[in-house]
Amino acid sequence: MKTEIFAFLDRVRPEIDAALDSLLPSESTSPSQIHRAMRHSVFAGGKRLRPALCVAGFTIFHADFKPVLPVSAAIEMVHTYSLIHDDLPAMDDDDFRRGLPSCHKKFGEATAILAGDALLTLAFETVSSCRGFHEATLLHTISELARALGTRNGMIAGQVLDLEAEGQILRKDQVEAIHAAKTGALLSTSVWIGAYLGGASASEADRVRDYGRKIGLAFQIMDDVLDETESAETLGKTAGKDREHRKATYPAVFGMEESRRMIRRLTEEACQIAQPLASPTLIEIAGFLEKRCR
Amino acid sequence: MKTEIFAFLDRVRPEIDAALDSLLPSESTSPSQIHRAMRHSVFAGGKRLRPALCVAGFTIFHADFKPVLPVSAAIEMVHTYSLIHDDLPAMDDDDFRRGLPSCHKKFGEATAILAGDALLTLAFETVSSCRGFHEATLLHTISELARALGTRNGMIAGQVLDLEAEGQILRKDQVEAIHAAKTGALLSTSVWIGAYLGGASASEADRVRDYGRKIGLAFQIMDDVLDETESAETLGKTAGKDREHRKATYPAVFGMEESRRMIRRLTEEACQIAQPLASPTLIEIAGFLEKRCR
Repeated sequence: MKTEIFAFLDRVRPEIDAALDSLLPSESTSPSQIHRAMRHSVFAGGKRLRPALCVAGFTIFHADFKPVLPVSAAIEMVHTYSLIHDDLPAMDDDDFRRGLPSCHKKFGEATAILAGDALLTLAFETVSSCRGFHEATLLHTISELARALGTRNGMIAGQVLDLEAEGQILRKDQVEAIHAAKTGALLSTSVWIGAYLGGASASEADRVRDYGRKIGLAFQIMDDVLDETESAETLGKTAGKDREHRKATYPAVFGMEESRRMIRRLTEEACQIAQPLASPTLIEIAGFLEKRCR
Repeated sequence: MKTEIFAFLDRVRPEIDAALDSLLPSESTSPSQIHRAMRHSVFAGGKRLRPALCVAGFTIFHADFKPVLPVSAAIEMVHTYSLIHDDLPAMDDDDFRRGLPSCHKKFGEATAILAGDALLTLAFETVSSCRGFHEATLLHTISELARALGTRNGMIAGQVLDLEAEGQILRKDQVEAIHAAKTGALLSTSVWIGAYLGGASASEADRVRDYGRKIGLAFQIMDDVLDETESAETLGKTAGKDREHRKATYPAVFGMEESRRMIRRLTEEACQIAQPLASPTLIEIAGFLEKRCR
């Protein structure tokens, strides 16, 4: 099973990277500094989990996933924008990301702020210029993507709540609300967008979004667990930052064993939800996430 | 003439503000800190020039401008996002904006970065959710708005070139290229969007965009002139910052008298371009800009 999911990721990752490469201005395009900064962060070795989820959602309905690649690339752009801004000194203040200097460390804060802004902007330009889908479908995609990134239960809401919670003792529902917004909204919207663009019925699309919520939460708990247990070398970023910042992490609130149990339960639930969609890929992605954490 | 343009601005400004008020989450919406920061900067007494230009472009073709108000509000959101990020310590480092503490000064840097991000995101959500226009028209609007904000001759390109140029001696064409991107792209796209949504023919839309380019440049030169000549109290922001940062301003490169002459020439050219559109408002806006600078 592990082999198959790697096979899926291995097959789609080069295609997603090629789409990103063709959509991002080249390093020599003026002003070159900003384009170098954007490419530095986009091509820093990300797993491409969110765009792969978008492709996986699309492949429930179509074997050929080429039409959805620009949109999945746009999803990776917004994910990268969020990482660049999260790493800034005023935010999480992280000097490393995926084993490389973070954007502001290499290009300076001003360029990093603008590189994040530019990736967010280019993502919307990309979806609005995409061919091969109905205009109403693309508009709704833009609307849902923007909501997943926004301040009402979207990514920015999660980031604000996370910053506010530093040093505080939180209840389980509060930790879940932060993570549902901060990571879950974009993850579940990524797989939803793929299924929606693929032509999912309303009930199929709802099911895909529920699946996305479960694995989004599982993924966030896993991220917290890895931050505690892995070395900086394996992690590619500064380890133990969460504890140092007294972040509202799952291991801090529930302990390590319970956190691992939650990951297993969430991925099992995700698999049950995905079952009627008859998509081996969705089930394998859930299994892949769970295994990373054993 | 001055009375009439004030009449136009006075008439549209409350409508634009009402649209912004209904589109922005209330201050009590959780997480409240980010919504207070967004509203602080949006309702800090801006002139609403860009959304007013969008409305003016629309009124060439329709007396009732209500349908275009959400889009014009979205344009003010992206303008405010750019001001919030420009004021950050890593960028222009300005503590005041329109006579009030800048966003990061009042809410801290992390919240200011996120408030800018959130306004940019909400702007795209707003246009994508707008009713009363063809879907293809809205998609093209999003695409053009994103291009005006982007790194290829858009606002971010202008900001990057401007930061790179600090302390350097520039040629006239270099100063113009910076300002065309930094201010001109969004200004000209604002009036273009209004006309395009109003149903302009391709040649009318081109003409409106040319008009926008001229007054966009005139407006930027005027801004530079005012930064040199006005007091902080009149300006509502720290005066003389451009000189202090050795920015590539028009007065610094061409001198004050020549800068004023350029404003007059550009506004005259803008009026000539607008003449066949039979829009008294466009001509009066150009006149208003020119007079502010006498």
